[in-house]
Amino acid sequence: MDKKLFHNAPATLRGKGLGAGDSALPMDAGHQGWSILREQVSLPAAVLLRSALLHNLEWMRRFVAAYGVQLAPHGKTTMSPELFRLQLDAGAWGITVATAPQAREAWLAGARRILIANQLVGPANMAIVADLLDAGGAEVFCLVDSADNVDALGSGFDARGLRLDVLLEIGVTGGRTGVRDDAQAQAVVEAVARWPRALRLAGVETYEGVVADEAGVRAVLRRSVETFQRLRDGRAFGRMPALLSGAGSAWFDVVAEEFAALSGDAAAEIVLRPGCYLTHDVGAYRQAATRIHASNPVARQMGQSLQPALRLWAYVQSRPEPDKAIVGLGKRDAAFDAGFPVPALHYRPGDAAPGDAAAHWQVTAMMDQHAFLQVRADDDLRVGDMLCFDISHPCLTFDKWRHLLVVDDDHIVVDAVTTQF
Amino acid sequence: MDKKLFHNAPATLRGKGLGAGDSALPMDAGHQGWSILREQVSLPAAVLLRSALLHNLEWMRRFVAAYGVQLAPHGKTTMSPELFRLQLDAGAWGITVATAPQAREAWLAGARRILIANQLVGPANMAIVADLLDAGGAEVFCLVDSADNVDALGSGFDARGLRLDVLLEIGVTGGRTGVRDDAQAQAVVEAVARWPRALRLAGVETYEGVVADEAGVRAVLRRSVETFQRLRDGRAFGRMPALLSGAGSAWFDVVAEEFAALSGDAAAEIVLRPGCYLTHDVGAYRQAATRIHASNPVARQMGQSLQPALRLWAYVQSRPEPDKAIVGLGKRDAAFDAGFPVPALHYRPGDAAPGDAAAHWQVTAMMDQHAFLQVRADDDLRVGDMLCFDISHPCLTFDKWRHLLVVDDDHIVVDAVTTQF
Repeated sequence: MDKKLFHNAPATLRGKGLGAGDSALPMDAGHQGWSILREQVSLPAAVLLRSALLHNLEWMRRFVAAYGVQLAPHGKTTMSPELFRLQLDAGAWGITVATAPQAREAWLAGARRILIANQLVGPANMAIVADLLDAGGAEVFCLVDSADNVDALGSGFDARGLRLDVLLEIGVTGGRTGVRDDAQAQAVVEAVARWPRALRLAGVETYEGVVADEAGVRAVLRRSVETFQRLRDGRAFGRMPALLSGAGSAWFDVVAEEFAALSGDAAAEIVLRPGCYLTHDVGAYRQAATRIHASNPVARQMGQSLQPALRLWAYVQSRPEPDKAIVGLGKRDAAFDAGFPVPALHYRPGDAAPGDAAAHWQVTAMMDQHAFLQVRADDDLRVGDMLCFDISHPCLTFDKWRHLLVVDDDHIVVDAVTTQF
Repeated sequence: MDKKLFHNAPATLRGKGLGAGDSALPMDAGHQGWSILREQVSLPAAVLLRSALLHNLEWMRRFVAAYGVQLAPHGKTTMSPELFRLQLDAGAWGITVATAPQAREAWLAGARRILIANQLVGPANMAIVADLLDAGGAEVFCLVDSADNVDALGSGFDARGLRLDVLLEIGVTGGRTGVRDDAQAQAVVEAVARWPRALRLAGVETYEGVVADEAGVRAVLRRSVETFQRLRDGRAFGRMPALLSGAGSAWFDVVAEEFAALSGDAAAEIVLRPGCYLTHDVGAYRQAATRIHASNPVARQMGQSLQPALRLWAYVQSRPEPDKAIVGLGKRDAAFDAGFPVPALHYRPGDAAPGDAAAHWQVTAMMDQHAFLQVRADDDLRVGDMLCFDISHPCLTFDKWRHLLVVDDDHIVVDAVTTQF
């Protein structure tokens, strides 16, 4: 296979986590052949492990194929045009996003089915989406959960002479957005019907990720299926097939199982929206994967689970006390809201290969640009040693980087991707 | 005064928090005259209040002038070339940064005294700094707290035929980097002396911000002064005057007071490094300002304190339950590690002007793209209403934005600044 995965990159890179030299580097970072271990990259640096990325891509392709459902990966996780293209080229039905500017980025990356898994509010945001529709050839969906918002959308898109696809969002009490009951749902559906030129009810959506337990998750999914069936039977949908969409990155297996009630129904297009599968992590999503492999027959049959593909390299910059190392990796570089980074590899420049990080090395605190690593006084860990960290919560790690280096299993840079947050 | 503060901006802006239209907008956002209140900007958007920014700039200029000390604002806070220029044009001695790539950005923005308030580790990072020195005309300082690091720096810069200025970092037990005692300090100073061509001991540095209480802060500052005096008396410094530097954004007044022991000493150049003063906040730094105004005579005599200059506008996108509003503002847009954003203004499009947000409106949780706002059932707060939030922790808010709009007191966009994280 061609070593270059990405072909639509901008011309220059600039900033942290690159090789030394000019501040604006040509995008062919891969052609530089920078070696992480030979210290040719400024640390801290974010890397994507190419083999794990491709494994995860193929894993999810097979998973959704087994269920006969579509995949619209949540693009807000990576906001990387090159990764969007990778996902689309691997068969993704479309790209999910959270905001109008993100929708524009998905469009610029080539997505032509864009699911804004959120309410669309405000004239400037509506104008961004209207411009995408105006350009032709793209379907854009957004969520609605109030008549107020529906009327604002209707008025806005009517004025532009355009028609927007909207999905009724099903929510739960104590949750985030979405209608809580049938009466609220009915009010929204009636509001959509007031704008036949500007709005089209295109389906039903839910985000089960705000629910804490599996029983609650299954309950909101079943309510979504029932609502979908009722609206379909009442001929409320203007799109055929209508969309039934759910799934963050933690419960996509349960969504696939529950929505299977409608698989084979020509009136239903089932769309899953996990975003974190592509890079995975060693926090909440590894926990989720453990559950999935224990309970979902398709996942179990597929064997090896998702693999952590996003890692951070950093230097030990100080050993100021016997049981403490200060590492040049901070809140500016890694998510810290769902667990601190976890040391995975330890490498002393000049050694043949990295070894595993000691299991007792633990990040105990982070500041903007530093991590505090608890070690033991007799650990052989020196200033200038390199550490490779796994992360928790890919979303809030990606948004710390304007580019990430793609590396092979020997830690050689073979490519780079950009982000557009 | 010219309404345009900034003149060295790149050609295009792209992404969230801009006016609608093309994805790549010309940088003359100010000339667009976008009105936040007339909904001409895609929300969420980050804004800098021009009047508060200029007030804070002038406040700190007067403060350091009163103490006869120099200012090297910590650039890691904003990482904005336009704000660096603003600070340099207002008389800043130099720019402080945390990493080699940040040093390069400061250099590109025009800084010619660059204080890396951190250890410099690894050949690629050293090469970035060496390139800046090689270009000529710039002084670059970094911190040292171990002989291992000193020897690596000596070897690296010797190979390039360049000389780097290093500052001995004084730290505290339980703190971050820096030598804990005189024996460690002596070992570092001796190591520096082994590299007379490549390294020059240029002064003493401390970061008192890791200490919890004022007594502890004053203790480490006094230890720094004593160490400085001892090294000066022993003719250990290669730079005349030698630097004595301290001060994050919370204790800069106490640093000015303690370091006043050396003011008027021709052998000492005192450099303070606060970074958050420029935008201030309503969290830890407002608390600090309250303490400063209660205890520091110069600040008290100056009257009005620092003002919050960095704010975020967002829409109410859902009112799914009577006592809950969901706002389109998330961890992707605002710092959340030192307090959630605080509602300041409430504006209903069409109204004459914003009013104060209700005091009981409170962000109770944030997700990547959403904030959960607790309200009362009878509050007049609707989907489509706009909220303006104050923030806590400017550093982790700035790094969520590639540009911030500069607004006048009528919420009209008069300029824009970029960031280079």
